[in-house]
Amino acid sequence: MDLPDFKSLTDQESPIYLQLYWRFRNAIATGKLAPGDRVPSIRSLASELNLARGTVEAAYQILSSEGYLIGRGPAGTIVSPQLDGRIGATTPVGSSVLRRPNQVKASGTRPLQLGLPALDAFPRKTWVRLAGRNLRSMNIGDMVNADSNGYEPLRRAIAAYLAVSRGIACTPDQVFVTAGYRGALELIRRTLFQHGDTGWFEDPGYLHARRFLEDAGMQLVPLPVDDDGLNVEAGLRHAVDARFAVVTPTHQSPSGVALSLPRRLALLEWAQAQRAWIVEDDYDSEFRYDGRPLPPLKSLDHGGRVLYAGTFSKVLYPGLRLAYLVVPEQEIGKFRNSVAQLGSSPVLFQATVADFMEQGHFARHIKKMRSLYAARRTYLVQALAQVFGELLHVPERAGGIHVLGYLKPKYNDKAFAAAANADGLAVMALSEWHIRRRSPIGLLMGFANIATPEQALQQVRRLRKALDG
Amino acid sequence: MDLPDFKSLTDQESPIYLQLYWRFRNAIATGKLAPGDRVPSIRSLASELNLARGTVEAAYQILSSEGYLIGRGPAGTIVSPQLDGRIGATTPVGSSVLRRPNQVKASGTRPLQLGLPALDAFPRKTWVRLAGRNLRSMNIGDMVNADSNGYEPLRRAIAAYLAVSRGIACTPDQVFVTAGYRGALELIRRTLFQHGDTGWFEDPGYLHARRFLEDAGMQLVPLPVDDDGLNVEAGLRHAVDARFAVVTPTHQSPSGVALSLPRRLALLEWAQAQRAWIVEDDYDSEFRYDGRPLPPLKSLDHGGRVLYAGTFSKVLYPGLRLAYLVVPEQEIGKFRNSVAQLGSSPVLFQATVADFMEQGHFARHIKKMRSLYAARRTYLVQALAQVFGELLHVPERAGGIHVLGYLKPKYNDKAFAAAANADGLAVMALSEWHIRRRSPIGLLMGFANIATPEQALQQVRRLRKALDG
Repeated sequence: MDLPDFKSLTDQESPIYLQLYWRFRNAIATGKLAPGDRVPSIRSLASELNLARGTVEAAYQILSSEGYLIGRGPAGTIVSPQLDGRIGATTPVGSSVLRRPNQVKASGTRPLQLGLPALDAFPRKTWVRLAGRNLRSMNIGDMVNADSNGYEPLRRAIAAYLAVSRGIACTPDQVFVTAGYRGALELIRRTLFQHGDTGWFEDPGYLHARRFLEDAGMQLVPLPVDDDGLNVEAGLRHAVDARFAVVTPTHQSPSGVALSLPRRLALLEWAQAQRAWIVEDDYDSEFRYDGRPLPPLKSLDHGGRVLYAGTFSKVLYPGLRLAYLVVPEQEIGKFRNSVAQLGSSPVLFQATVADFMEQGHFARHIKKMRSLYAARRTYLVQALAQVFGELLHVPERAGGIHVLGYLKPKYNDKAFAAAANADGLAVMALSEWHIRRRSPIGLLMGFANIATPEQALQQVRRLRKALDG
Repeated sequence: MDLPDFKSLTDQESPIYLQLYWRFRNAIATGKLAPGDRVPSIRSLASELNLARGTVEAAYQILSSEGYLIGRGPAGTIVSPQLDGRIGATTPVGSSVLRRPNQVKASGTRPLQLGLPALDAFPRKTWVRLAGRNLRSMNIGDMVNADSNGYEPLRRAIAAYLAVSRGIACTPDQVFVTAGYRGALELIRRTLFQHGDTGWFEDPGYLHARRFLEDAGMQLVPLPVDDDGLNVEAGLRHAVDARFAVVTPTHQSPSGVALSLPRRLALLEWAQAQRAWIVEDDYDSEFRYDGRPLPPLKSLDHGGRVLYAGTFSKVLYPGLRLAYLVVPEQEIGKFRNSVAQLGSSPVLFQATVADFMEQGHFARHIKKMRSLYAARRTYLVQALAQVFGELLHVPERAGGIHVLGYLKPKYNDKAFAAAANADGLAVMALSEWHIRRRSPIGLLMGFANIATPEQALQQVRRLRKALDG
């Protein structure tokens, strides 16, 4: 690998960081730097060239945002392995800033990516301090397999949080810490379901849960979703003897509607009468911008039929892979037996989340994010209105961290999503989330990482351009 | 909660730490300290009483080793919740040192516990330093879901390690980092197996893998194990059309025998002819004390039928829950698709293991452990010979981190194990690992945490006493 020649940063007309940027681009375009090559760290390059760190950082930032460089965390920064010869050395900077080469699978995030919290607003310093303390006090108990139902102080903190914030009365023994929502689904499946069991599933419904359950041999019965949420009556008519129902009552995934109270009660009544299980996926109830949410099914569950799942992926960060499941008291024994076969999540992160909750950082962070997300949602919704007008209909929703823009049926949302993603965005087609139904169609977009109205406009314009092809 | 009265540590005849010990015991026996109560940290108690930290630490150590106190990591130390009124205040120290109350479920380890590496010999400082560095450099890429097939530098380090130490030629793309061996099994199941598929399984064979696979709907065909390992001929006779075989060729789990070369070749030939899959669980090949091991099946696998699984649980520590799977090159695509549904392990630990390997700590640690374990194995084997004589037959084995002591058929190994475990030990009955067969019977014992010949003798005497009832 040849590094670019940095010795003559003499062009007095453009800022040093842009000169640096250009030298890297030239080095990549001419093959001096090959895909996969490691580049010097910001600190070492700044020290070598006797520049301020911020100067080098600015250059690296543009190079990264354009997809030339990819941060690999502790392994340093490398030239993007996905780069091919397409990128010329002569493209002017500016128009291409924030434009990534096609199909870059960044280790970071992409514009409009779904399912991510605001990573820029995460209290990283506090987190690193708490985790560092737990790391240094690692003892032998932490080195063997931890309690497979979860680290006790964390289960206690979760039970206290659910009591206060969601009106769910449960003991720490009812709480099981799992490796993400999928870990919770796997635990439920192993404990209560048989291969081939049928279950109600929202149509459209959460794509990853559907794939996971189908792959595990479950037979899903798709039920339509309308403005009152899952159509429970359709379930009673077509599959009254199903063994379970997987639902997102707070903000239906992906439509964002809330399941109405009469339907909640009908669902619980059905489960009670059939001795069926309700999996309540309360994945983003923390983020609600208007009014108060309806109480979760679990808080109305007097018959012990609801398995309540929450996650830290949306409130903290998804790489944590920590979620939790609250099981009915009479099922604790069964769940304990099966969780022992699944193993547990690392104690370090469980203990850090417990500290984060106990010390009040968790509640503070949620509160901050609530107003931040309300603002960021507005940035996106307004930009969509400005750029798309009536082409994209975005209904008001009370919560969540994504928006769903509906398209007229004459369009093809999958083709739109593919075009946008080929251009480096990360939207999803609503019809991907369909099981049997074919309408409505639309685009799912995350807004949590849109920092300013200008950025929203820029990303939405890019989206429009991709769709106009 | 009332803390013991520490203000008058005036008894000049016994050391301060023993006086402290006795005051805690009295406080617990008289109910001043209740099960679950938190006790002061070593530092704060030492500072309050103006004692050296080591003094308080020594007292806490005895109290912990006897089961009165339990460390909860960052949550502090508490009075064991499992304590009931049984423990009198007048038992003299000494005879009862290292004796835990019945049924204590320690968050640490129990004597003779299986499956643990030497936790006292783990290079904790180096580990904490490397992990701390990775923690502080956490970036946005680490906060979103990492590459679901594993952190690239770790996959590279594993491929390099396997090439050197096991003669396995594979690319980093063939390596999948999984959440423990069970994560590897789950990945294989989802990718290659159908519900109800039949597979060969060693009888006796690794208990947790058997339970996991049966629970996932696999039909296991038990095949006998003799001094040449799995009886492949029996498989060919009784279930030639099985879809897979799960084997532990290096040190059969639990017998410790090696699969003979002719049988290795017969097994590979069968898999090739039937297009069946071989899951090679190479769980502790790092620890071999005599001679060179036979090459792994994977290194002889020219037809791409072997899925090779290794783990960091035995070389580093089980709480990490990191293992890896090497898949045949032509199956990479399928595995990539299904691993995306399972999610990934935290980047922090993956990056730390990668650093640990790249910087040579890993190889050094294994080398050290090899001689340590050879010594510790001898401690246990000699103590067993001295205490049990001909009652327990312990064959010589070339490797592994547990020993298997065979009992005469007239005994009941399950009852023996239950008696020993009720007394706070952690041995397992060989017959628990049987599927169809009823003999031989015996006890499985871990030796990695036995620090001295005296400790071995003490633990084995305890075992004998428990068995003699």
